[in-house]
Amino acid sequence: MAREITGFSNPLVKRVRSLREKKFRKAEGLFLAEGLRILTEAREEGVLPEMLFHAGSTHPLAIDLIAAMEAAGGDVIETTPDILSKISGKDNAQAVVGVYRDRLTPLAKLDRSKADIWIVAQSLRDPGNLGTILRTGDAVGAGGLILIDDCVDPFSVESVRASMGALFTQSITQARWGEFMHWLRQGPGELIGTSLNATQDYQEPRYASPSFLLVGNEAQGLPESYEAECDQLVKMPMLGKADSLNAAVACAVMAYELLNQKRAQR
Amino acid sequence: MAREITGFSNPLVKRVRSLREKKFRKAEGLFLAEGLRILTEAREEGVLPEMLFHAGSTHPLAIDLIAAMEAAGGDVIETTPDILSKISGKDNAQAVVGVYRDRLTPLAKLDRSKADIWIVAQSLRDPGNLGTILRTGDAVGAGGLILIDDCVDPFSVESVRASMGALFTQSITQARWGEFMHWLRQGPGELIGTSLNATQDYQEPRYASPSFLLVGNEAQGLPESYEAECDQLVKMPMLGKADSLNAAVACAVMAYELLNQKRAQR
Repeated sequence: MAREITGFSNPLVKRVRSLREKKFRKAEGLFLAEGLRILTEAREEGVLPEMLFHAGSTHPLAIDLIAAMEAAGGDVIETTPDILSKISGKDNAQAVVGVYRDRLTPLAKLDRSKADIWIVAQSLRDPGNLGTILRTGDAVGAGGLILIDDCVDPFSVESVRASMGALFTQSITQARWGEFMHWLRQGPGELIGTSLNATQDYQEPRYASPSFLLVGNEAQGLPESYEAECDQLVKMPMLGKADSLNAAVACAVMAYELLNQKRAQR
Repeated sequence: MAREITGFSNPLVKRVRSLREKKFRKAEGLFLAEGLRILTEAREEGVLPEMLFHAGSTHPLAIDLIAAMEAAGGDVIETTPDILSKISGKDNAQAVVGVYRDRLTPLAKLDRSKADIWIVAQSLRDPGNLGTILRTGDAVGAGGLILIDDCVDPFSVESVRASMGALFTQSITQARWGEFMHWLRQGPGELIGTSLNATQDYQEPRYASPSFLLVGNEAQGLPESYEAECDQLVKMPMLGKADSLNAAVACAVMAYELLNQKRAQR
């Protein structure tokens, strides 16, 4: 269905704009993704938005997206650049904005045999870090991201943007620590944590697959009781004055060590 | 000199608050750093602010900072939590705010023999990425960060915050590409770039010291003509759909590869 909206006070515009706030995302089970690059990445994964907003873009990727939406009977809304800016909350609006159904995978439905690496984040607070970790997960061929305890909303605009589309290639699961550990111990899998308290260098162990890489909160790191349940507790060399790396950086350095070990074994 | 300010309209409060904007930082040659952790890191490096604002904190680190300022004859200003919030632009103000003289090291004064790793960033746009790269530089024992072409201001509040104090442990240099290459070729040093166009895996080469790790712009990567001048052009494995990593993440994965090679040689 194709239609046109040119009024700022249109209720749909207001409703879509409200998805910038977590409470409305949660109530509707919907979230926003912006920009041709991210929406095209989603389409290539077979994921189309529920609604597609555009301002008459003639970019070939926009034309492809609109065609795919129309073929699937999706809701395509042509609007003005000003209204697109209003929806996206930015002066320089993207060419397209999509409204997607949220994509949580229940823990019980995760197939751990699908990938050699899984990333587990605990009480992550920064949406940019969360999106960046998804993007790294995609790069190392991880199966998905498991969010433990109170993490920032993975469907926030900032997180979606930082993921650069990896939100659509990585599964996302939310669980409490107890649930997660119960599930983890029902099958194969090594839980790997990084910690200032570790004595073992991160390049020392030979990690077994599937590897579950546990990333802690930006300010506090992992709770000691969580560290105690790790199968491997390791540290990265820190030669300077600082005692820690940015959470997304530490995750990536560790994830590439896992990937490098796994590709050396092949 | 210790003094008290309790008025919102005090000209010094306005002046300090203006340092949140680049044009005023540039005009004054000053920048802001906030929070006990970052200011203490600076003090441990022997760097004290020109002015220290606090709101009567009784935290031992605040007391140490004030004592160090007084011993050095520095300007200590006691103010209200509200004014601290106004200066820092946050509802939840930090306990201390310091005003520092900016810290640029001219290219001609860089001693490349001081470290095995140097990071070079080109047209970096995101202040969080810049600060995170400084933090990673500190962790891998890099000598400093060389900013090429039009990078975001390293002294922005966001960059200082993301650096977690590494702004005070890493030297910062600004240069045009031509100047930098001229300087680089006057002494030992291998220039290492990462690129989608590379055919060589990043773990293949044996990197020579000092290594100059070149990080490109977040959206465009490195210009082809810059890639052509690299001594090593390498790529990281990308197993997913995305074709690139976040710039600060790519820098860290590469920097840890360099560090791992260098520590294996010791």
